[in-house]
Formats: sequence, C-alpha cells, structure tokens
Amino acid sequence: MKALVFRNGLHYQTDYPIPKPKEKEALIRVTHAGICNTDIEIIKGYMSFHGIPGHEFTGIVEECEERNLIGKRVVGEINIGCNKCSYCKKKMQTHCPYRSVLGILNKDGVFAEYITLPVSNLHLIPDSISAEEAVFVEPLAAAFEILRQVNISSSDKVCILGDGKLGLLVGQVLASTACDLVVAGKHKEKLSILEEMGIKTELVSTDTAGVIHKLSRQRGDEGGQFDIVIDCTGSPLGIESALNIVKPGGKIILKTTVAESFPLDVNQFVIREVTLIGSRCGPFPPAINAIETKKVNLLSLVSETFALEDGIKAFEFASLRGVLKVILKLN
Amino acid sequence: MKALVFRNGLHYQTDYPIPKPKEKEALIRVTHAGICNTDIEIIKGYMSFHGIPGHEFTGIVEECEERNLIGKRVVGEINIGCNKCSYCKKKMQTHCPYRSVLGILNKDGVFAEYITLPVSNLHLIPDSISAEEAVFVEPLAAAFEILRQVNISSSDKVCILGDGKLGLLVGQVLASTACDLVVAGKHKEKLSILEEMGIKTELVSTDTAGVIHKLSRQRGDEGGQFDIVIDCTGSPLGIESALNIVKPGGKIILKTTVAESFPLDVNQFVIREVTLIGSRCGPFPPAINAIETKKVNLLSLVSETFALEDGIKAFEFASLRGVLKVILKLN
Repeated sequence: MKALVFRNGLHYQTDYPIPKPKEKEALIRVTHAGICNTDIEIIKGYMSFHGIPGHEFTGIVEECEERNLIGKRVVGEINIGCNKCSYCKKKMQTHCPYRSVLGILNKDGVFAEYITLPVSNLHLIPDSISAEEAVFVEPLAAAFEILRQVNISSSDKVCILGDGKLGLLVGQVLASTACDLVVAGKHKEKLSILEEMGIKTELVSTDTAGVIHKLSRQRGDEGGQFDIVIDCTGSPLGIESALNIVKPGGKIILKTTVAESFPLDVNQFVIREVTLIGSRCGPFPPAINAIETKKVNLLSLVSETFALEDGIKAFEFASLRGVLKVILKLN
Repeated sequence: MKALVFRNGLHYQTDYPIPKPKEKEALIRVTHAGICNTDIEIIKGYMSFHGIPGHEFTGIVEECEERNLIGKRVVGEINIGCNKCSYCKKKMQTHCPYRSVLGILNKDGVFAEYITLPVSNLHLIPDSISAEEAVFVEPLAAAFEILRQVNISSSDKVCILGDGKLGLLVGQVLASTACDLVVAGKHKEKLSILEEMGIKTELVSTDTAGVIHKLSRQRGDEGGQFDIVIDCTGSPLGIESALNIVKPGGKIILKTTVAESFPLDVNQFVIREVTLIGSRCGPFPPAINAIETKKVNLLSLVSETFALEDGIKAFEFASLRGVLKVILKLN
C-alpha cells in the first residue's frame, strides 16, 4: 500500500504491506488524515518513533468481525491498551503502561491507505459531519480533556497561550464554559478566526516578556492575573510565560510537549502554590457532539489539502509559520 | 539587641537596634528559634535576603495595644500582607504580592532578641506545649498545608521522598489520614523516628535510580505506583524521582525549594497527565492542635540547642548531614 514512512527521514513508499487486523480489530481504509504538531516533532526524533506516523484520521471500515460496522465512516481513539492491567480495567487505556499509540508508539499510523484498530477504539461519524471535520475529532477531544480535568466556571479568568491549531480548538471549547477568556497569540490572521466567533484575543509580540507585560498591564498590577492559564504554545518557554501571568494558587494546564528538556524555575510553583496539570488525550463523544451541533468552527482551520503522494511536501508546508491544519486526502 | 545578621556572610552582632512595633503590631521577645533549611538556603543567596534571618520561633509578647496579650506565649504566622489587595481581602495573605515575610523577604526575622509582628499573625501557645515544641508550629503548619490542598483518603498509596525535618513532619501529619504511606529516605536513624511511631519507611541509596528501583520493585511493575508523591527532598532531583514513581494521573506535591533552576523533562507531566502542586505555608491552628493532642512526636527531631551567641556554629552544625532541627535559645 501507499504510505509515508519515517525511518532515517520521511519517505513515500508504494509497497508497504497492508496491516492484518488481529482479533477484535477492524481494518480501516483511511480517507483523510491530519498532520499534527506531534507528527512534526516525531520526524525531529520525538518518542524515537519509526514507521508510519499520523494519528488524526477518518476512514471507512473494510473488514471487521462486527459486520454491521463494515462500510461505516469512523474515527478512532489512538491508545491501544493491553486490556489486562489495572489501568485498562479502570478504563484508563490512555495510561496503560503496555499500550501502543497509533503513529506514535509501537503502532503504524494513519499516513497510509490502511490501518488497523481495535473495534472498541472506533466511533461512528454521523452523515452531518464532513470528512475534513472528522479529522479534527482527535485533537478536539484533547481540548475537551481540559474540561474533564478542571472545573472551569464563569467566574474564572482564563488565558490560553498559543494560537496554533490546538490553541484555537481549546479556545473554542472553553468559550462554551462562559469563563472570562482571552486567547493570546502571535498571528493576527489566526486569532481573527476566534474573533469572528466572538472570542476575545490578544496579539502579543514574539518575546515572552511581551506577552507578560501586555497581559499584566491590561489586567491590573498584582502580578499574575489569571486563575487558569493553558499552555498551547508548543514552546519550551510556554510554562515560563504561564507562570508569570497565573495568579498565586492558580492552575496551569500544560498541553505542550517538546522534544527537549529545559531549565525551569520550579521554586515559583512552591512559592506561589501554583498547580501544573499535564493534559493529553481526551474523550471523543463530546468532541463529536460539538461538531455535530456546530459549536465549533473547524473548516476555517484547514490551511491546505494534499494527496498522500505529496506527503513530504505537505509536512514541509505544515511546518511553515502561519500554517494551521494540513490534511492528507487519500483516494 | 543581640542578633544574627546576614550581610556579606552571617555575623553575630550585639548592637542591632530593637525593632519598633507599628500600629496593630506587637513587640515580641523571642525565647526560642529554629533553623530551617530555608535559612540555610538564604545564607547561600536564596531570595537575595539581607538582614536578620529566621522565621520559626516562640516568644513572649512585651508590648502591644491589646494589653491582654502582654506576657503571653505566642507563635506567629510569617507572611505579613498589605491588607488592601484582593488576596488579603480573601484571607490569602500568604500570597499578597506586596507582602513581607519574616526573615525571608523585607522583614527582619527571629534570630534576634526581639521581633515585631502584626497581632493578627499571632497564635497563643497553651501551657501544655513546651517552647521547643512551639518552635515546630510553623513547619508543622506547612505540612498541614498539604491536607488543605489535596484530599488524601485511605485508598491512596502515598510516598514521601526525603527524611529531613520536613519529610518527618509531613510523614507524621499524613499518618493521621490512614492512607497507605511510606516515607523514603537515606538516613536509617532519621527513619527510625517514624518507624517507632508505626509509620512504614524505606531506606534507599543516595542515587535517584536507587529510590525508584527499590520502591517500584516493591510495588509491582506497572511503572509508577503511587497515587501521591510528596517531594520533601530539598534536592533538585526530587521531582524527577517523584515523576518516576507516581502513577499516571497521579499527583506530586512539591515542598522543595532550591536556589537554582534545573532542567526538567516536562513532557512526562503531559504524557502521564501528572499534576504538580506547589505547597508552601500552612494553617497554624491544626498544627497547634496536633501538638497539644500529642499526635506528633517533635522532641525527637531536635538534634541540638545552641545559644544565640553561638549562632554561626549552630548554622554550621545544622548544615551537617544527619542533623535534624537545631534550636537557638535566647536568654
């Protein structure tokens, strides 16, 4: 089959073997896949992954023991647990220590014609949701994870740092909580997507000090002014900026993963009693529901669509400043 | 008055001016003071503090507008808020951005014959509590802060890293929650204090890998095994050890403050959805109550008592490996 393969660089191949579904797995023909920042980090060496990357997709079930699924449009959760350990028994497959992760850990991903996934990972996509929208279910679920972890109320002042794909999705999800929300980013054109939806934004200069200064000035002068800061910057400097604008006793939700370790002034967490909450994959049902009920505007986040054959070009384009979601379309 | 003063090194002086109480403040004659690790960090440069260090004390009120307090034995909360900002209005003086902190920030501390503190910071010490025990109220309150921040139940597996003064206090406080508790440390003789109280301990080698290996082996092989890990190591490596033994979705409570920044693999917080909770000063009333009701054993934590005149020697002694609380006694 056709596939993008990462092994000593990213390659387009036409002779990659079609995967064989194991027991309780389905074979899925991928129709659309999305390039995520994690994929871009992976081809820089993150997770030491080798194989087919990619984990955002929609496709059609081709083979499956549950015959009523065949021919259905689906999306799929990306963590495949062992189903035996204490985490799997508590439905925490995302934290199974023996898990594989689609296109990230010990499991070929979706930049290919076919993938396999356990049937229990699949979610049906209603007809009212387009394939391009369905590609966003996985990252939108990651945005909904925040609401599963933290109670956000209308009295909370919340700042999202970063106007990349994830920042824009988190912004749309948090707007539903009626909190006092501002999304801070460096790209006027990206922020305008949220502005058009009535979400407050703040254009900040490229340097961290600029973010802090601008947001602090606006919000009073008592140091950090946000109850909750969500780091979607994708930059090692994100936490530092978050620490500078979060209130004492406040919360930082960390969505950023980066390939390197970096020095952090951990004292600030102790002195200001700040809580840092790591946040990863989230629940699919609220994400599918939000798309179906038109609570989110996803198509404006699509920058470009490429054929799988042009996948390497697509990765180069996806890495450019200002580009949002790049979709790979398969025939 | 006599005082230990930190300014280009630590000096003993006999001619330091006696402080003058401001409105709503009391003048307190210090009778006993404790040397805390923070004091040892301060004389290494932490907080860029200059003046009289020290914040753990008990003493007798000498001057005060509230005349019924005069002659009474007291301890005192160490954060002095502005009483005007939004934090002070919410009784969060510990986070007032304009606060001073006794012996730590813009306020002379307790290694001296006299201090001043707002009357609202003072707590009376019942006769049943000895002066040596009263010196522990402040650090014991910091241990109780953990229970204010996190709900710890009998089903939680909890590991305290570090058998220094704070680790031993936190161990005693957490034992009251009936959680499945183990305190890991490097000093047999320190851990034995807890063992004698029926608290499980684990002697680990000096290297972090040793801690992890030993605790993981005991607790099964599914990676991190503790719901809650409390870092009382006072070492920059504490968080890393904690990350390695905490369960996915678990909590790390950070008590350690160190003078330097250090590299941290922040990805692990995201991937394993770990929550980091910075924890500082805590509530005095439960600490005083725990001492009064003999729920804690503090006197076994006193390594030595020095006269204020021998304060420099006392600091040297307090910095030695294996030494617990050093008390300065004033005449």
